[in-house]
Amino acid sequence: MPNNSIKTPHFASFFPIIGWLKTYSREDVNGDLFAGVITAILLVPQGIAYAILAGLPPQLGLYASILPPIVYALLGTSRTLSVGPVSIAAIMIASALAAPEIQALGEPLQSALILSAESGVMMLMMAVLRLGSLVNFISHPVLAGFTSGAALLIIGSQLPQLGGLKTPACGADMACYTDYLAGINTPTALISLASLSLLLFFGKPLTGLLKKARVKLVIITAISKCGPLLTVIATTLAVSHFNLTTQHVAVVGSIPAGFPKLGMDFVDPEKWHLLAPYAAFITLIAYVESVAIAKVTANLRGQKITPNQELLALGAANIAAAISGGMPVAGGFSRTMVNFSAGARTQMAMLIAAGFLSLAVIFFSQWFADIPKSALAAIILVAIFRLVRIKHIFHTWNYDRADGIAEVVTLLGVLVLGIEEGIALGIVLTIASHLRKTSQPHIAIVGRVPETEHFRNIKRHSVETWHHLLLVRIDESLTFTNISFIEDYLEAELRRQPNTKHVILIFTSVNDIDTTALEALELFNQSLLATGKTLNIAEAKGPLLDKLEKTDFIEQLKPGKLFFRTEDAVKALG
Amino acid sequence: MPNNSIKTPHFASFFPIIGWLKTYSREDVNGDLFAGVITAILLVPQGIAYAILAGLPPQLGLYASILPPIVYALLGTSRTLSVGPVSIAAIMIASALAAPEIQALGEPLQSALILSAESGVMMLMMAVLRLGSLVNFISHPVLAGFTSGAALLIIGSQLPQLGGLKTPACGADMACYTDYLAGINTPTALISLASLSLLLFFGKPLTGLLKKARVKLVIITAISKCGPLLTVIATTLAVSHFNLTTQHVAVVGSIPAGFPKLGMDFVDPEKWHLLAPYAAFITLIAYVESVAIAKVTANLRGQKITPNQELLALGAANIAAAISGGMPVAGGFSRTMVNFSAGARTQMAMLIAAGFLSLAVIFFSQWFADIPKSALAAIILVAIFRLVRIKHIFHTWNYDRADGIAEVVTLLGVLVLGIEEGIALGIVLTIASHLRKTSQPHIAIVGRVPETEHFRNIKRHSVETWHHLLLVRIDESLTFTNISFIEDYLEAELRRQPNTKHVILIFTSVNDIDTTALEALELFNQSLLATGKTLNIAEAKGPLLDKLEKTDFIEQLKPGKLFFRTEDAVKALG
Repeated sequence: MPNNSIKTPHFASFFPIIGWLKTYSREDVNGDLFAGVITAILLVPQGIAYAILAGLPPQLGLYASILPPIVYALLGTSRTLSVGPVSIAAIMIASALAAPEIQALGEPLQSALILSAESGVMMLMMAVLRLGSLVNFISHPVLAGFTSGAALLIIGSQLPQLGGLKTPACGADMACYTDYLAGINTPTALISLASLSLLLFFGKPLTGLLKKARVKLVIITAISKCGPLLTVIATTLAVSHFNLTTQHVAVVGSIPAGFPKLGMDFVDPEKWHLLAPYAAFITLIAYVESVAIAKVTANLRGQKITPNQELLALGAANIAAAISGGMPVAGGFSRTMVNFSAGARTQMAMLIAAGFLSLAVIFFSQWFADIPKSALAAIILVAIFRLVRIKHIFHTWNYDRADGIAEVVTLLGVLVLGIEEGIALGIVLTIASHLRKTSQPHIAIVGRVPETEHFRNIKRHSVETWHHLLLVRIDESLTFTNISFIEDYLEAELRRQPNTKHVILIFTSVNDIDTTALEALELFNQSLLATGKTLNIAEAKGPLLDKLEKTDFIEQLKPGKLFFRTEDAVKALG
Repeated sequence: MPNNSIKTPHFASFFPIIGWLKTYSREDVNGDLFAGVITAILLVPQGIAYAILAGLPPQLGLYASILPPIVYALLGTSRTLSVGPVSIAAIMIASALAAPEIQALGEPLQSALILSAESGVMMLMMAVLRLGSLVNFISHPVLAGFTSGAALLIIGSQLPQLGGLKTPACGADMACYTDYLAGINTPTALISLASLSLLLFFGKPLTGLLKKARVKLVIITAISKCGPLLTVIATTLAVSHFNLTTQHVAVVGSIPAGFPKLGMDFVDPEKWHLLAPYAAFITLIAYVESVAIAKVTANLRGQKITPNQELLALGAANIAAAISGGMPVAGGFSRTMVNFSAGARTQMAMLIAAGFLSLAVIFFSQWFADIPKSALAAIILVAIFRLVRIKHIFHTWNYDRADGIAEVVTLLGVLVLGIEEGIALGIVLTIASHLRKTSQPHIAIVGRVPETEHFRNIKRHSVETWHHLLLVRIDESLTFTNISFIEDYLEAELRRQPNTKHVILIFTSVNDIDTTALEALELFNQSLLATGKTLNIAEAKGPLLDKLEKTDFIEQLKPGKLFFRTEDAVKALG
């Protein structure tokens, strides 16, 4: 069981599949088979669409839906995560492949395989170095801003496809846009319109109708998830029947038949070097998104995700993608929710889905050639719209201004500067803002709540004070980042209260004093002693005392003292 | 007065000189005149030596000792800071000028002036943007490691000069070193030996003798500081008298006579762009070192330094350096201590010193031509040795391991990777380690100290506990960096204590909950409610409550509650 891996790592902990296979039941089969079929139905159009979104041949998306989920099923701790091509990673791959230095390499297909392999290696390295917690430095607002921004970029890239157009290059020239729109291909636009209508109908309208008809909920789920596949089938049939390719309707084109060939085409140190920054960002996002959705579904069933094991599993899955000619993979948010709500109990569902995908590439690949790209664009657009979360920005902005700014800046950064730059900007901004906050800790001048032993902020409570005592509670560890703020505060307070004889620092919240802060406190103590005042410490915690006892700081305080409780200090000095 | 600048910035606050000139007294004159002469005596050899250390013509050091200290005297808040060329900045300039992309520019003299101007502009920008507190992110251990490393680099660059040699390029080839040492120039080595002897004698031995002879302390200070000047005079006379330049003794060479010409040769956008990173590091170090020593001397006299005004003053001084053909300037540590202990009362001392320097460049510049470089190397070596603080490393290591590592890594980084790389590495390392620490906050399971209202760590005190209550004190604000650590902790604790009915989070040290942490707490609360447990908050502070009231979080907690005191929570739930 994965839970054991924390304390006693052994063979089984590296293969969580052993845990659930042991207790695999008939009920599990039913749930997994159904969910597997539904997920496979979703995976075929998604795999092709996301590969094209990434600017790659369609088979890279299909291959990424076969071996990687199988490898993940062996190693992953999530029972329901659906690993395969995902939209956000696809737009990141597109961004990498569009960079001038990567374009100069030629062979985008090989670059994509390198991105898979390199992301996989990076995840494995993070697992070995136990660096999974690095992702904690990406805050939710940054992630939300990034997702909204990336989704908007995807929308911008897919909208022209609905009309069979390329991205416009008109700038502010309005006349140019008129010419541009005149280039719309009518059959393509009609296919798009039909696709969008069908997809939207398969959403709320159809489920509403089926609910009224008292159809079982699982059946409703199953039917409503068939929208993309039906769209693809219907539009492909239309293309074949009316021979629309002669009317310039763009289609997917031929896909090599058969199971993906395994290979190691991605070994090329120089290209790895150039692609490393892109792979690093894909690694980060793929891992964060996968663990986030894995946690949500696990919590709903009282199961547990082991982040480090997830890094191993996702890393191995990405290396499997590279070896089997697939694009980088991650756990897909919407697909996982579909798998989960279709009743998947274990990763057997994904093994079944992978089986169906294998059958598809072996027997049906020639059928994929006539899929119109505009139908795929419609599928992507309908799926991606809900990732643009404008409301979330307002909520964040209202609750925490700094977080709101981070979310907006990340979103704008992604749109204006680029995918990688946007997320990097967001991360740097939140860390800088975090540092600024912790460098200005909360400090309270306190007094005693009458007839208690409680000391509270004089600004917020009516409390007893003593004119020759300055009771100061510092609500943060003393470090190089905040000690000069604290010093300035104390000096200002002493100027305001010149009768102070004893300064009492209350250390309830002080867990550590680093070298910089200690040196500063020593200087502050010296300046107090020089003016006939003393520095005293109250409520210092054990580990801090252990550390201070290694120095002569407490000796230096004399006649200032160390008190166990603030009350003791007030009694002795008051 | 500078103090006013915090609240009511007005004309006088921009010119602290107005403050002290108003009350300037006869006693002030005496102290300042004496200190000015002593500092001038030190400045002449230092100015020439540091310019040569930076790889520049000697006049750049002399010019940097005239106009910049005058400008600082008008604007600076320190009464005794001696602004001019300093050794650490000199080695940083040398490092910049040695970089391939800067060497490709040619004209090192112009590059040096650009460094002065650019550092000045950067300081002014920091002043305007009130970014002075940025330097708080350089910890003492990083600064100490950097200083030791830079001092070792200076020693390494100056030692060969004692024998008239260049830096060896032998690697591990021992035979090469034999040849190398055979290249020592005997007269140069003799000059070095004599210089070192004289300089060392002017240290402790001479002051010891003078003390025994009951000479007045100020006179002792004055005499002992004449060592460098006497060394220069004696060795220069020796060079002239024995015509040692014919024997390949390297000398300073001719210096243009007269007062520096003002100019704007440093305006060149492309070069500014290339030199910007170097200027940024010089800015940082010049400012940190200047404010550190200014604070020390100010504290000793109960005066006050205004960091933002210091940025203005040092920025203007550096721009003055650029205009008057000088190298970048800062407050020198040893020179300021000399100025201070020689009795300087105000910046008048530095104005007097600048006057003497002007006389020197106008009337005596031809005398400087024969100064042997090896004598200057000896002066630098004797001054720099005490900056290598190996003991400090051991102290730091012993007190705080993370700080010790930062100090060692910074030192080694400077030696192995380079000056800028070393300090950057140190800063990044300390910030990363700070983030790691704050991402693993101290959390205590607490119980009640019998017959009190105090709640303390169950591991350190014998306290009352209740089997269905989990009382958890989190000693840090809840943010994106630490919330997942806190969640893991709580979940592990709940597995250990399955009978828990109510979780009570004690927020004495929690000043803020950011968006990420709030979203995580909401999910945690949902999982508790799903298992029939409640989440409760105690001791939340005012500002935090104000913030939470903007959300429906407290509503979501129900039947969990908010309690004023932990005691209240225990009474209600216990």
